[in-house]
Amino acid sequence: MPVFLDAQDADFEASFTALLGAKREDSPDVDAVVADIIADVRHRGDAAVIELTAKFDRLELTPETLRFSEEEIEAYCAQVTEADRAALELAAERVRAYHARQMPEDASWTDASGAMLGWRWTPVSAAGLYVPGGLASYPSSVLMNAIPAKVAGVERLAIVVPTPNGVANPLVLLAAKLAGVDEIYRIGGAQAVAALAYGTDTIAPVDKITGPGNAFVAAAKRRVFGKVGIDMIAGPSEILVIADKDNTPDWIALDLLSQAEHDESAQSILITDDADFGKAVAAAVDKRLETLERREIAGASWRDYGAVITVPDLETAAALSNRVAPEHLELCVADPDALSDKITHAGAIFLGQYTPEAIGDYVGGPNHVLPTARSARFSSGLSVMDFIKRTTLSKMTPEALKAIGPAAETLAISESLEAHGLSVRARLDALNS
Amino acid sequence: MPVFLDAQDADFEASFTALLGAKREDSPDVDAVVADIIADVRHRGDAAVIELTAKFDRLELTPETLRFSEEEIEAYCAQVTEADRAALELAAERVRAYHARQMPEDASWTDASGAMLGWRWTPVSAAGLYVPGGLASYPSSVLMNAIPAKVAGVERLAIVVPTPNGVANPLVLLAAKLAGVDEIYRIGGAQAVAALAYGTDTIAPVDKITGPGNAFVAAAKRRVFGKVGIDMIAGPSEILVIADKDNTPDWIALDLLSQAEHDESAQSILITDDADFGKAVAAAVDKRLETLERREIAGASWRDYGAVITVPDLETAAALSNRVAPEHLELCVADPDALSDKITHAGAIFLGQYTPEAIGDYVGGPNHVLPTARSARFSSGLSVMDFIKRTTLSKMTPEALKAIGPAAETLAISESLEAHGLSVRARLDALNS
Repeated sequence: MPVFLDAQDADFEASFTALLGAKREDSPDVDAVVADIIADVRHRGDAAVIELTAKFDRLELTPETLRFSEEEIEAYCAQVTEADRAALELAAERVRAYHARQMPEDASWTDASGAMLGWRWTPVSAAGLYVPGGLASYPSSVLMNAIPAKVAGVERLAIVVPTPNGVANPLVLLAAKLAGVDEIYRIGGAQAVAALAYGTDTIAPVDKITGPGNAFVAAAKRRVFGKVGIDMIAGPSEILVIADKDNTPDWIALDLLSQAEHDESAQSILITDDADFGKAVAAAVDKRLETLERREIAGASWRDYGAVITVPDLETAAALSNRVAPEHLELCVADPDALSDKITHAGAIFLGQYTPEAIGDYVGGPNHVLPTARSARFSSGLSVMDFIKRTTLSKMTPEALKAIGPAAETLAISESLEAHGLSVRARLDALNS
Repeated sequence: MPVFLDAQDADFEASFTALLGAKREDSPDVDAVVADIIADVRHRGDAAVIELTAKFDRLELTPETLRFSEEEIEAYCAQVTEADRAALELAAERVRAYHARQMPEDASWTDASGAMLGWRWTPVSAAGLYVPGGLASYPSSVLMNAIPAKVAGVERLAIVVPTPNGVANPLVLLAAKLAGVDEIYRIGGAQAVAALAYGTDTIAPVDKITGPGNAFVAAAKRRVFGKVGIDMIAGPSEILVIADKDNTPDWIALDLLSQAEHDESAQSILITDDADFGKAVAAAVDKRLETLERREIAGASWRDYGAVITVPDLETAAALSNRVAPEHLELCVADPDALSDKITHAGAIFLGQYTPEAIGDYVGGPNHVLPTARSARFSSGLSVMDFIKRTTLSKMTPEALKAIGPAAETLAISESLEAHGLSVRARLDALNS
């Protein structure tokens, strides 16, 4: 049973705070193991990667077979059905079109002092994308990570994907091909992250690593951060649905279950202004759980972390949602745009009853890599911005330096940084002489 | 003596690679101490903060005196000279004007399928800024951190600044006031970071923490990352100057020293296409080091990490600079704009001989919090973007769902996520019936 709360109950605040604070994931402490693996790969390169792959993935590789050949990729892609290929192509096209709009503009202007100021965006040169193997090997995630990198102009994009026992997912390889990935390596775990960060004889190092992974991968990403850039460390998925009574309970139930089926630690919350509708949705969830393929996972998530919250009005729903700062937020209400304007923290908003969250996972266009665990309070989903960086520009004319240089000198002296001040003063003296 | 290299020497590649790989900083391992401090503050709140402040800063506080009162702030601000105040005001105004241009636009459009797509930017609600005490207590850093937050629309901006023995820096308090900071607490170290991240009875928690600090502060920021957002962990400062012979050696020497004087671990590199000019600059550095106030620090930095590199042409200079990916890059050449176009990785570029880097530290307008340790390959300086986050938006019409929903269902099935597929299918069936 999920928890049922009413915002007008006396103990609501305490219950809601407990819901917000619920720790849904205990990451095993694998840091020491990961540190050893990274050190080994830095020291022995390909040999370490090959040895660790034999050990963890039961796969014997050589430096020559670390990377998928063009022929292998083609052969795998040929296994994909026409329907799957068409769906993947539609998704790739829509994700590309959305992210193309994210490219920010360079800027340059001259201000009143005569100083030229501005900035310029440039892409990261080389990026690496981690793709999990096995069950959580999602072709959609390949598109969502790789396409923004390519739209940003990343010249070299490498994928690492473990293939336990040598088994690869044809859809993952096709997604990589559609996204324009340049290199695909059949390795995984902390050893793959280390190879991307530090390079080996076979694998050139990259500047940025993104993509989801297990506890070993997450720990490795944390460890190589600084040497390379990384994206966020994602936690279990979440959805919050705000729905009024004019919805089909079964649709809302399926939306809640589409997060719950990801992971026993996922969280699905319904907020409604109609207590009876809330009960009807809960009943529909139970009904669907009778037959759902992943009912064990989804059922555990719904039982342990699910919640149905009744509120007196949608204003209150928005305020509670902002405290949750959900990864995914569905607004199934009569005027979703008006309610959306009241939302200050959410990774992605899905407006109206015809926008199930699953659309956003695959074909909507926006990225499905989104901030979890309430981090939408301070961070954004993956985007083109993760693969570009800004260089600020400034150019003083003699007049501009005369106008603003003395203030710089004054502040340098106040901070006891004499050379800073002198570097300005020497030029001002020359200009004034 | 700094290292002198010539790009045309046979062993240049080895020497340059060694220069790139030089480890300039050994951070003491304070993680265990910091973990204890954070746990203590989470558990005992104000009492822990007060006790740790008495221990580390030799300052006895109560919950009532943790925060500077308005009267105290006014009294400190009144101690600032008119010249310092005017300089700080000019800096604040210029930094504000530059960062105001960084605010990105919301977007919303309807695509061919009839889907409404877009995104919306919202500010972080509450941010905390760490300001070091003692020698490295720079009012300019207060402006550089606080102004972007306020331009972004952060509603509540709190500063923590240790005041060892109760001594505060009037310029820091004035900078905070000019930047529109809302709360100032006289605490520091890991305990201040913990108080900002988790809150106490007196200090409400924030969503994002930025600002420089010592090893304890850096370790605390790493530890609270996830619970709150953090900015980059900054390393020692760096400058790379590309200069031709038509420069005054003393000016370039002062620019190199203005980084070297920050820290014995700072790095200053000159790349020139004229070996004699390089020698003249090195001689000018030595001359300035005879009298510079911070000659011990600057001299050690220049001796241990300084470099003068001679190249056959400016094209080579740009290529080497891109491998360094310097925090600060000065282009003191006849056509700095043309050379700037060849730069792919740098935190900030200063164009022409009248733009000493020190201008950018104080009054130029761009931020002086910039990526160090070659991280300009994948990251940017502090900006308004650090205090806002993007929520993606999508809204399907029935027609749009009919057009793209089937592809989402196909991909959901291929990923064995049945509820995802059903959430789309249930709606499509209703629309098609």
